[in-house]
Amino acid sequence: MLTLYFKPGSSSMAAHIALHEVGVPFEARYLSPLKNEQRTPGYLATNPEGKVPTLVVDGRPLTEVAAILFYLARRHPEASLLPDGDIEAEAQVVSWMSFLAASVHPARQKGPEHASGVWRMVEARLGERIWAVGDRYSIADIHLFRLYWRYVNFPPPVIGSYPGLDAHYQRVMARPAVRKTCEVEAAIGYHLPP
Amino acid sequence: MLTLYFKPGSSSMAAHIALHEVGVPFEARYLSPLKNEQRTPGYLATNPEGKVPTLVVDGRPLTEVAAILFYLARRHPEASLLPDGDIEAEAQVVSWMSFLAASVHPARQKGPEHASGVWRMVEARLGERIWAVGDRYSIADIHLFRLYWRYVNFPPPVIGSYPGLDAHYQRVMARPAVRKTCEVEAAIGYHLPP
Repeated sequence: MLTLYFKPGSSSMAAHIALHEVGVPFEARYLSPLKNEQRTPGYLATNPEGKVPTLVVDGRPLTEVAAILFYLARRHPEASLLPDGDIEAEAQVVSWMSFLAASVHPARQKGPEHASGVWRMVEARLGERIWAVGDRYSIADIHLFRLYWRYVNFPPPVIGSYPGLDAHYQRVMARPAVRKTCEVEAAIGYHLPP
Repeated sequence: MLTLYFKPGSSSMAAHIALHEVGVPFEARYLSPLKNEQRTPGYLATNPEGKVPTLVVDGRPLTEVAAILFYLARRHPEASLLPDGDIEAEAQVVSWMSFLAASVHPARQKGPEHASGVWRMVEARLGERIWAVGDRYSIADIHLFRLYWRYVNFPPPVIGSYPGLDAHYQRVMARPAVRKTCEVEAAIGYHLPP
């Protein structure tokens, strides 16, 4: 039994997409920012940082976007969300996710100048590639998509031009699991901090 | 052929420890902070962020601590640095490393009050456990050790009391691979930013 705690448009969107990609049943538990539901004693017992996402697997909480994506991809190899049997490529997926979590995610809080420098670096890292690692869509692409989605759709928007990231964004957005996630989350409504 | 680019006492120490743990031959390339060797064109071609560590595997750079630890652990299962065949436990290791990289590593720059709050959270997360995940030493313990090592040994030190982390620190420090790494890095000398 899987339960996803999420907030529309937040980091949890990546986990939400991955659940739709692997196609397993799950319970989606929406935490309302207006009611501050991430800070209730009940939720803090599940995730002491009060963050989303948390994926509860048969009663056991798993936190951090990278870990939830990794878990779903490994548990469901039929969904092909990780390079199959190639340890170095799998490590490159972990590298992308770590870079995104540690360097790209916090950039938003450091002002538009810093953020645009970070996006230039991401654009260079993606380069001419279709997908982040190798020639196949993976959980690294889901993680990258969610961060860029945030910048594209909510102020402050990205400064400058990132044709590689724009094309990647469209490629990921074309996937049914991604469109489904966006529809579900948009219907609830986004209440995102600046 | 493996080449580690490192700077004594920095995040690269975790990768350095893991290399000694798996016991494979590698070339250690020290980047001098006094000569600003992380910003040379040669190194930036290898790692565009100019960060350490980078592990070059047969000419291909792998960046980010979590990814290098993951690669070495998966490539050398005989070293038992990841839970064996347990996908959920492996995801918990990724969760620890993501939490350490995204929430604990940057805490240092946010002042002692913020940092002590973060360490309280780490202490609570470790709880009564001997090791971060399950009942075995893993790459999550190496990552945790390096961050706490930095606080224990260089100002500003940790504020408050973290008996669980202190005991964990001693447990990890007792490992020959860890002592060996500390000896090699101390002999070169630490030049760490505040």
